[in-house]
Amino acid sequence: MSGIYPKSLEEVSSLLCSLPGIGKRTADRMALSLLDWEESELIRLSNLIGSLKEKIRFCQICGNLAESRECAICSDPKRDHQLICVVETPRQISVINKCGRFNGVFHVLGGRLSPLDDIGVDSLNINQLLERIRENDVREVILSTSPDVEGEATAAYLAEELSRNFAIAISRIALGIPLGSDLMFADAATMGMAIDARRPIR
Amino acid sequence: MSGIYPKSLEEVSSLLCSLPGIGKRTADRMALSLLDWEESELIRLSNLIGSLKEKIRFCQICGNLAESRECAICSDPKRDHQLICVVETPRQISVINKCGRFNGVFHVLGGRLSPLDDIGVDSLNINQLLERIRENDVREVILSTSPDVEGEATAAYLAEELSRNFAIAISRIALGIPLGSDLMFADAATMGMAIDARRPIR
Repeated sequence: MSGIYPKSLEEVSSLLCSLPGIGKRTADRMALSLLDWEESELIRLSNLIGSLKEKIRFCQICGNLAESRECAICSDPKRDHQLICVVETPRQISVINKCGRFNGVFHVLGGRLSPLDDIGVDSLNINQLLERIRENDVREVILSTSPDVEGEATAAYLAEELSRNFAIAISRIALGIPLGSDLMFADAATMGMAIDARRPIR
Repeated sequence: MSGIYPKSLEEVSSLLCSLPGIGKRTADRMALSLLDWEESELIRLSNLIGSLKEKIRFCQICGNLAESRECAICSDPKRDHQLICVVETPRQISVINKCGRFNGVFHVLGGRLSPLDDIGVDSLNINQLLERIRENDVREVILSTSPDVEGEATAAYLAEELSRNFAIAISRIALGIPLGSDLMFADAATMGMAIDARRPIR
């Protein structure tokens, strides 16, 4: 906004600008449009933001975000608690949940193995996962870490560790060409894997 | 987020979602990433948002947003106060200011003439503009309302009114084909106007 608007507005804009996916221009528009809000709505947003950290903690069972001891998913009796999907962060839960094909529960690692960043087995919620499987009747664990170097390494480590300790099914999300995409734009690594992992259709 | 995250987080997301340019997905990402902020930054944003309305008012001279009697532009002695650019809203100021070709001051109408919405001459800051020109040494007024039906009507009305009352230069921003665009995509109305308003080059 470069000095033409009031300082408090510019400050809001520059704070919003540090959020993901928000450029300077969008942040400016957002800040300006906050002025059109009712005072009561502004106060509501202000209060919510101010108390966000103190209200939100991690689910004692799975590590998802929660406002009480257990998150909304772990405390849902309609979910299949014998089926655990292992993810890196709470953000990944939403993507998987939205696809509508998974009705199990989650386990949030809190990251992925990354020796270069000094993130080893003990930095992640891996012991909690083992303990959780040990103490509960778990049928299958789906490894849903991201399909990049560190995510794959984390999945491989977990697959090894789980199969050594438990007689349960362990699976990995299918990797391949995304639906709706043009093969022309597939990268070589993905294409190669899609060939290697081809499924017989008849 | 559909019930998988804490309620306070979903509330923040749904409030952010009502801002312009922010879809559900971006709002979710923003809300989640607020959790990564330092507590002090959250409090700062919270306080800014909560006090936005009480801090910000309209500049007594031009109608721009301000935190004191005069906005940053009107109180800037390095600006050319004899040159007034008339805009509809404070938001348009930023676009004009950023182009770097205008060093005058602004006058914010607070809308445009729109009989259907019951917005007439008295609903806009038109009398203030006339008074401002009458009491100050103004050299030129640039009419910069948007080039749509109502913006054009507003500009036409102002041109008439100003030329009847004052012996000053009155101009309208140039309308035509935008720079960097492909003529192929120009609409007929714009193209027609670009022909009509063509400039001799030698």
